[in-house]
Amino acid sequence: MLVLLTDFGVTGPYLGQMKAVLYRQAPGIPVLDLFNDAPCCDPRASAYLLAAYATDFEPGSVFLAVVDPGVGTDARRPMIMEADGRWFVGPDNGLFAIVARRAEVCRCWEISWRPERLSASFHGRDLFAPVAAVLARGGTPPGQPVPCGNYEWPDDLAEVIYVDHFGNVMTGLRAAQISHDCVVSVAGQQLRYAPTFGAVGVGTVFWYENANGLVELAANQASAAECLGVTIGTPVRVELLP
Amino acid sequence: MLVLLTDFGVTGPYLGQMKAVLYRQAPGIPVLDLFNDAPCCDPRASAYLLAAYATDFEPGSVFLAVVDPGVGTDARRPMIMEADGRWFVGPDNGLFAIVARRAEVCRCWEISWRPERLSASFHGRDLFAPVAAVLARGGTPPGQPVPCGNYEWPDDLAEVIYVDHFGNVMTGLRAAQISHDCVVSVAGQQLRYAPTFGAVGVGTVFWYENANGLVELAANQASAAECLGVTIGTPVRVELLP
Amino acid sequence: MLVLLTDFGVTGPYLGQMKAVLYRQAPGIPVLDLFNDAPCCDPRASAYLLAAYATDFEPGSVFLAVVDPGVGTDARRPMIMEADGRWFVGPDNGLFAIVARRAEVCRCWEISWRPERLSASFHGRDLFAPVAAVLARGGTPPGQPVPCGNYEWPDDLAEVIYVDHFGNVMTGLRAAQISHDCVVSVAGQQLRYAPTFGAVGVGTVFWYENANGLVELAANQASAAECLGVTIGTPVRVELLP
Repeated sequence: MLVLLTDFGVTGPYLGQMKAVLYRQAPGIPVLDLFNDAPCCDPRASAYLLAAYATDFEPGSVFLAVVDPGVGTDARRPMIMEADGRWFVGPDNGLFAIVARRAEVCRCWEISWRPERLSASFHGRDLFAPVAAVLARGGTPPGQPVPCGNYEWPDDLAEVIYVDHFGNVMTGLRAAQISHDCVVSVAGQQLRYAPTFGAVGVGTVFWYENANGLVELAANQASAAECLGVTIGTPVRVELLP
Repeated sequence: MLVLLTDFGVTGPYLGQMKAVLYRQAPGIPVLDLFNDAPCCDPRASAYLLAAYATDFEPGSVFLAVVDPGVGTDARRPMIMEADGRWFVGPDNGLFAIVARRAEVCRCWEISWRPERLSASFHGRDLFAPVAAVLARGGTPPGQPVPCGNYEWPDDLAEVIYVDHFGNVMTGLRAAQISHDCVVSVAGQQLRYAPTFGAVGVGTVFWYENANGLVELAANQASAAECLGVTIGTPVRVELLP
Repeated sequence: MLVLLTDFGVTGPYLGQMKAVLYRQAPGIPVLDLFNDAPCCDPRASAYLLAAYATDFEPGSVFLAVVDPGVGTDARRPMIMEADGRWFVGPDNGLFAIVARRAEVCRCWEISWRPERLSASFHGRDLFAPVAAVLARGGTPPGQPVPCGNYEWPDDLAEVIYVDHFGNVMTGLRAAQISHDCVVSVAGQQLRYAPTFGAVGVGTVFWYENANGLVELAANQASAAECLGVTIGTPVRVELLP
């Protein structure tokens, strides 16, 4: 399966143009839209999203991940990463750093192949999609092995990293090691744990473990993001109540 | 064909995660996005939409329909319904009630199967999608026959149930039995019938029978929703002019 | 490949209903969303978009293009066009005029086939999609040859024709013949050329040749549309600095 994570948004031609390459060069392989509204121009927040959501997909899946504010400059290299059998294709700007850190086995290549026609602004279509298609067909990474980059980012990110359509607020914190006795402090409020939406009153904001293991702030039949006034980058803090 | 009707919106990971299950467990069967912006957390309005749009699809189609504010609670059961040969999978919260009422033959099952891993908040991915995949492959409903639920909702809903991208306003009323001499009263205005957009002046608001048989309020090259100031739930009334 | 360009937006049922027809009547042929937020009710601006983006697709591709404010009236005819081996199906309202003008070989047909059931407002589903499916399967155009229409529109349109998710502003001007010494005047500002986003400071607005050859106004990590206060239809002018 070919899996897309981009900040292209769901309108405009870019997704379609990238998929057209995949349909032509990897015919018969399903192409899945995972996130196309990843935090815009923000590889760091996107890296924590990708790490939390990639684990839904089995080894052999190929992620075409493009959050690439440096496109067309020498500031970043085009990159392939294999982590625990999953493949990742995109810019070497930290987008894959958290997947790498959590992987048992991880290998990286700098993409040395170049297409006949490489636009300055759309490497997703011209460079990354053709490489993803090669990998999805079982081909060899068209590049040179390089050490995987190192980013001084925390293991878990105590910030808002995504706000969904319902106004639910994802953080970059994994819930597994956080006691349900803890409160999440955010924007001057302290939120208690609840197991799911129906367990609290309508409009109450709480925290819970979302379906991909992240600490998420939510409200029953209301927008937690509006109730709290938070956005991507807002810091959060986990505290044990005294 | 697998057909999706949800209130997940078109952004975020949820649709993709649900489709990933379908692609894996029902390979080769087309998956179609019908409505992914069904009225949010509103199974009642969504029920009238589903009934109006399901008839476009032939028997054997499987609808994966998730408008599920009670997810993770015991307030609703997971459910399968077969109505005139079409299959419906989702929560037992009234979402299928209008399809059931208009069907000639209707059977229901409570889903007794449970996955190894069932999150508290995302039954669409964990429970409903795998069941829809089984049915799309021609499998047996993995559940116990139960009576189909009964909801005291009207046959037609005299309310706004959806506002589209153009600002066209769908009501829960079927147009077939309404005379073209009638006016639709809504938000203090009386709208006359016209057969289509080009039949009235630019900016004029009128009512017509939409392409799925609903009474729809529209304006020629303008947003009827803005002109009228209406939203989902606004009441409408059909009247014969004296 | 079947390629969609519409002004339906990415929400609501219309895209899905049209795709359901394609999946049924052209099974196995990939269906690609290219633009579904083409300029609303604006066949003229959409015509320049279609011409700029159709060239990504090889001969044999079938474009189902529906920007059709006159649907259901006699003001426009349903139409098929073949231009340099690519097929176009949609309303005869100028939407294909710029593709036609730039083509070496171009033939047109008026669609004479009618479905059993033709709604007044949704020819995309009822008329155009079935015809596109026939052509995608290699069938003969179900219509009568007619001369291709003539529109007194310029070869390049010195206006804003699209604003994308990032706030990048596409114009209807092709960049190939414009010197990089030129400035683009728009909304009282003069923008200089830069090759790509990373070549200017954060927040600086510039013009560049986008990945499909159009003059595009952009800002590094900011929304050019907001910085400039422009929208579809805003005029632009190319000038050589003295």
